[in-house]
Amino acid sequence: MIDELQAGMGELNEKLGVVFVEATPERVVATMPVEGNRQPYGLLHGGASVALAESLGSTLAALNCPPDRIAVGIEINATHHRSALSGLVTAVSTPLNVGRTLVTSETVVRDDQDRRVCTVRLTCMLRENR
Amino acid sequence: MIDELQAGMGELNEKLGVVFVEATPERVVATMPVEGNRQPYGLLHGGASVALAESLGSTLAALNCPPDRIAVGIEINATHHRSALSGLVTAVSTPLNVGRTLVTSETVVRDDQDRRVCTVRLTCMLRENR
Amino acid sequence: MIDELQAGMGELNEKLGVVFVEATPERVVATMPVEGNRQPYGLLHGGASVALAESLGSTLAALNCPPDRIAVGIEINATHHRSALSGLVTAVSTPLNVGRTLVTSETVVRDDQDRRVCTVRLTCMLRENR
Amino acid sequence: MIDELQAGMGELNEKLGVVFVEATPERVVATMPVEGNRQPYGLLHGGASVALAESLGSTLAALNCPPDRIAVGIEINATHHRSALSGLVTAVSTPLNVGRTLVTSETVVRDDQDRRVCTVRLTCMLRENR
Repeated sequence: MIDELQAGMGELNEKLGVVFVEATPERVVATMPVEGNRQPYGLLHGGASVALAESLGSTLAALNCPPDRIAVGIEINATHHRSALSGLVTAVSTPLNVGRTLVTSETVVRDDQDRRVCTVRLTCMLRENR
Repeated sequence: MIDELQAGMGELNEKLGVVFVEATPERVVATMPVEGNRQPYGLLHGGASVALAESLGSTLAALNCPPDRIAVGIEINATHHRSALSGLVTAVSTPLNVGRTLVTSETVVRDDQDRRVCTVRLTCMLRENR
Repeated sequence: MIDELQAGMGELNEKLGVVFVEATPERVVATMPVEGNRQPYGLLHGGASVALAESLGSTLAALNCPPDRIAVGIEINATHHRSALSGLVTAVSTPLNVGRTLVTSETVVRDDQDRRVCTVRLTCMLRENR
Repeated sequence: MIDELQAGMGELNEKLGVVFVEATPERVVATMPVEGNRQPYGLLHGGASVALAESLGSTLAALNCPPDRIAVGIEINATHHRSALSGLVTAVSTPLNVGRTLVTSETVVRDDQDRRVCTVRLTCMLRENR
């Protein structure tokens, strides 16, 4: 399951260096390096945290999606609590609500000293797979 | 100005293929290719749109920031209106409010048929540069 | 049209003192008094701005909704730019994107000196009316 | 403490019928009736949930604020998961991150069958009290 997910995770996740660690309908976990994903001041780019969270939350929604539907992200919001400077960040995504049409997840990104870097909420719509 | 910005735009923007087109305190514009930034279904990854917008909104805030301060993104939210499939997307970032401590921008990402792909609002805090 | 909207605007809007001024599929405008809607420090409660915007954005979505569907708010976000102290605030809501299933609006709330108090984005889902 | 908070909660909270149940720096809880806070379809107005959450999150920030500062809400976002039809809703607000300048809280609003109605994240800035 994780191997399959990792192999098919798409171009952006490959570039970001995302590594999936766990993936169930209740919880998706992945890591991402700070190095290679920094903004001009040398800190982790906030957009990298958000992209990581969108990948995890979408994966979580897909794992909660009936087979005739696909999960599409429609709304995402993030609070950046602190900067990450080096090492890996770890993101954990859990469902807040699983409905028939909408799945909302929360993803918390932490640095390698376990400090909260970013909190993200994503809502995906479960659309018919045309 | 644009050359300097482009040269110093940092690792993540380089990976994403961001090209700055315009940068003033009133308006920042950049493009990004869909190819290379896709998610597993072959569409532009929503997180790439958000990362692009965070780059532009942060640049806009920096251009509105006194020299003894730096702009740090604290809150970002995005609505994904439609998928982008190919070509370039173009993002335009404009200020909604420029305060002493907080600068809020809106960024609109459009596909190469000028359809709205994503709307993003970013608030940056202007912190003392330690 | 405006009279009908005003008469049927519901309990919360009545309490808040919302007065609809304009309502078309392209633009909804309303006012609300600061007095009566303040928080403990004597400023307009931020939640009042958000509630006003949710009313306007929902009205806008309803005006863009086919007759067999109803518009239901699913996601809202707001940036509070400055405090409002007295008089009326005026909110203007316009569509950012009108899709088959989702309608996203932006509402700007201004004080009576025309200063931007709050920016709100609301996404409504157009559901079947059961 | 709760009595003082209740007595000084301000006009909007009074109108909404907010009743504080618990208030510590780690957790603020309050109830609000659906009746009196409905939108035209007879459901709890989404803006009432958001206003309730802004009250609780601001109270939580104030309880985590040094005495020479005041907490001001700057960014709020909410996902509406389901409608509330009758009875009371109960909101529980907890801190996600307490920094020197910014306090971020999460508030979950549930109906009287303990179903999640709304999830809200609020960031307050701790400003000097002028």
